[in-house]
Amino acid sequence: MRLSAYFLPTLKENPNEAQIVSHRLMLRAGMIRQTSAGIYAWLPLGFRVLKKIEQIVREEQDAAGAQELLMPTIQPAELWKESGRYDDYGKEMLRIKDRHDREMLFGPTNEEMITDIFRSAVKSYRDLPRNLYHIQWKFRDEIRPRFGVMRGREFLMKDAYSFDIDSASARRSYQKMFLAYLRTFARLGMKAIPMQADTGPIGGDLSHEFIILAETGESGVFCDKEWLDLNVLESAPGFDDDLGPFFEKYTNIYAATDEKHDPATSPLTPEELVNARGIEVGHIFYFGTKYSAPLGAVVAGPGGEQITVEMGSYGIGVSRLVGAIIEASHDDAGIIWPESVAPFKVGLINLKTGDAECDRVCEELYRDLNAAGVEVLYDDRNERPGAKFADMDLIGVPWHLTIGPRGLKNGVVELKHRATGEREELSREAAFAKLAS
Amino acid sequence: MRLSAYFLPTLKENPNEAQIVSHRLMLRAGMIRQTSAGIYAWLPLGFRVLKKIEQIVREEQDAAGAQELLMPTIQPAELWKESGRYDDYGKEMLRIKDRHDREMLFGPTNEEMITDIFRSAVKSYRDLPRNLYHIQWKFRDEIRPRFGVMRGREFLMKDAYSFDIDSASARRSYQKMFLAYLRTFARLGMKAIPMQADTGPIGGDLSHEFIILAETGESGVFCDKEWLDLNVLESAPGFDDDLGPFFEKYTNIYAATDEKHDPATSPLTPEELVNARGIEVGHIFYFGTKYSAPLGAVVAGPGGEQITVEMGSYGIGVSRLVGAIIEASHDDAGIIWPESVAPFKVGLINLKTGDAECDRVCEELYRDLNAAGVEVLYDDRNERPGAKFADMDLIGVPWHLTIGPRGLKNGVVELKHRATGEREELSREAAFAKLAS
Repeated sequence: MRLSAYFLPTLKENPNEAQIVSHRLMLRAGMIRQTSAGIYAWLPLGFRVLKKIEQIVREEQDAAGAQELLMPTIQPAELWKESGRYDDYGKEMLRIKDRHDREMLFGPTNEEMITDIFRSAVKSYRDLPRNLYHIQWKFRDEIRPRFGVMRGREFLMKDAYSFDIDSASARRSYQKMFLAYLRTFARLGMKAIPMQADTGPIGGDLSHEFIILAETGESGVFCDKEWLDLNVLESAPGFDDDLGPFFEKYTNIYAATDEKHDPATSPLTPEELVNARGIEVGHIFYFGTKYSAPLGAVVAGPGGEQITVEMGSYGIGVSRLVGAIIEASHDDAGIIWPESVAPFKVGLINLKTGDAECDRVCEELYRDLNAAGVEVLYDDRNERPGAKFADMDLIGVPWHLTIGPRGLKNGVVELKHRATGEREELSREAAFAKLAS
Repeated sequence: MRLSAYFLPTLKENPNEAQIVSHRLMLRAGMIRQTSAGIYAWLPLGFRVLKKIEQIVREEQDAAGAQELLMPTIQPAELWKESGRYDDYGKEMLRIKDRHDREMLFGPTNEEMITDIFRSAVKSYRDLPRNLYHIQWKFRDEIRPRFGVMRGREFLMKDAYSFDIDSASARRSYQKMFLAYLRTFARLGMKAIPMQADTGPIGGDLSHEFIILAETGESGVFCDKEWLDLNVLESAPGFDDDLGPFFEKYTNIYAATDEKHDPATSPLTPEELVNARGIEVGHIFYFGTKYSAPLGAVVAGPGGEQITVEMGSYGIGVSRLVGAIIEASHDDAGIIWPESVAPFKVGLINLKTGDAECDRVCEELYRDLNAAGVEVLYDDRNERPGAKFADMDLIGVPWHLTIGPRGLKNGVVELKHRATGEREELSREAAFAKLAS
């Protein structure tokens, strides 16, 4: 993409309304624009990141055997009256009357609707287990929306729902999602820690929330420093293996929010204990028959007996993750995208637009990198070098490839790694080979 | 995907509520489920088709130079008061009050919001032209929703918006979308005809609607039979070429809805005239300053003068297309998917599940086809052959590969082409080579 033609309204100043760094940087980098309190339009740069995160979430859900569908945003109130949650939910639920005065609502979550879909379609134990998920916009009418996409009103969530014949099978479904979540956050370049959690309004007797570590995070976290060295992508079993030992191991390494941590009873020595901050980005629940019983999600068992299915639900805040990753990965100059979610891999900086040789080399590199499948943002604008460097740091693409007249005379270009700040001068062929690999 | 593990609730009987064939077949093939009047959940099979259509639409928008973003579903009422459409829109607009009693609405279209985003970000003629699009769920509160996804209340639309400095440039943006639309529908396997249209509530002075031909279509169409032989993918210019001659040619071949067609003044002889039926799936508008003027979308021109930008908007009904393609491509046995949008390319039918040799060959073909990147739906259920054939015809995947004990004894498998009904017996290696190519 050529920056001269890209819809990227960056801001030079820090916007007043943004209280936290991710909100500030997303506004400044032209990723989002507020359209109402707590509601955002995702501009092209932000949209690219959102889609990359969504795709990694999707791939891990698919690998775990969950099947993607898509439920609508608008739900009928009746379903929520059946489950008993319609009155419980309070003013956070956006309630709507349609032209025929029917009570509808903008879904804040989908336990009721997926249970309704399941009960109408599945009648036999032979069709279990099933795990169905969707990635859809939800609405929660927060009284004071703030912190940008971290606590917006309209937000993108991945929510999966498992259906099993008994508790043992349901726990296995839970373990698969537990593994999928650890893998997902690791692939996003984040260090995520699962913590035993209260089940809150969703209900149930087993629940974990996933916190990614970020210095600017909203919650205090105490955990065993072993967490910092674990690499789940290297050590995890496959989804079809016995996940019991893995689950045991990962749920027994100490981790607690500051509300729950008690130094007096903690099993760790001060040397073993890490005190960090983090952001909740996922939450999984096993809640048995809490929804299947009132909604009558029942299948015939092997002997024809009626069995109420065991359910769990599994959420990831996809739009929230965009903010959370920035909280975890930025510096004073701007965002530092992990390569897996970066909107572009390479920022190509033409130091002297209009110089025939600089233009020619940049055009060739832009063409060749694109042809090699590398996503490039080419700063071809007629701007000062300082402005170009500052914008590329702000946007935070992983590699900055700078072409200037002096370097070209010496047969070199400069490659900078955004995360480490390391720079090297090398031939354009070597730079291309490194970026296209 | 193994059918035994797939969430695919097919129906044996025709559902009473479905009046048209696409609605009937989508319900019977387990593609969708109604959750409220005119609101549908997309089950895994339907979701796959929806995503494939969406992706083709996206690729052609990108190729035409449009940039993808994503606006929220919920919009503030103020914007619509600024444009003057808030009161005009009537009861089709789903109006909402949030917890602070602010007037909101579920967007039926996005002219106002995109103009607001544009005016806050773009200040100079140097940043033009721009074309911004999104693919997002919309809501129109139809008084009598019907015909399934063809006239639903919550529906997926691609809407693009162009911004240009003057009328000549705006017409060029219009021509690019005109070409992108013809290419999109051709890639979907459809014969689409652009017809000059009234601009209706969107306004403006230049507009075309795109009708795809379908015997069961809602509208009568009269057109030059030349349309039936045109192949836009072979003959179209590139998006950066001069599109004038192409646009001239395609807008001068006769086509009219039955309301507008007048046999007395038609330029065609009866031999040249085709009387067909069709379904509207896209609509493009050039409306000048209708929204940019009231909303103040103004840029500085080369001499510093203030210029109100010229706009167009361009819609494709993505969810509607799923129904429209079925209307255009089905038979008594079920759906006939064009290969580009088929949920799977191959249906692998095991005629005798439990037979060691059939199971072994099917498992190997399933594994090898998947490894070759071919999407396969493997019917591994313990069902009668007749039920398996009927389901695969209903679902309508393009190629049916049938493995039975008798064929295996003779060293052959059977390959059927769903669209033509042609069958051939061939070695499994030859079948694999044909499907994996």
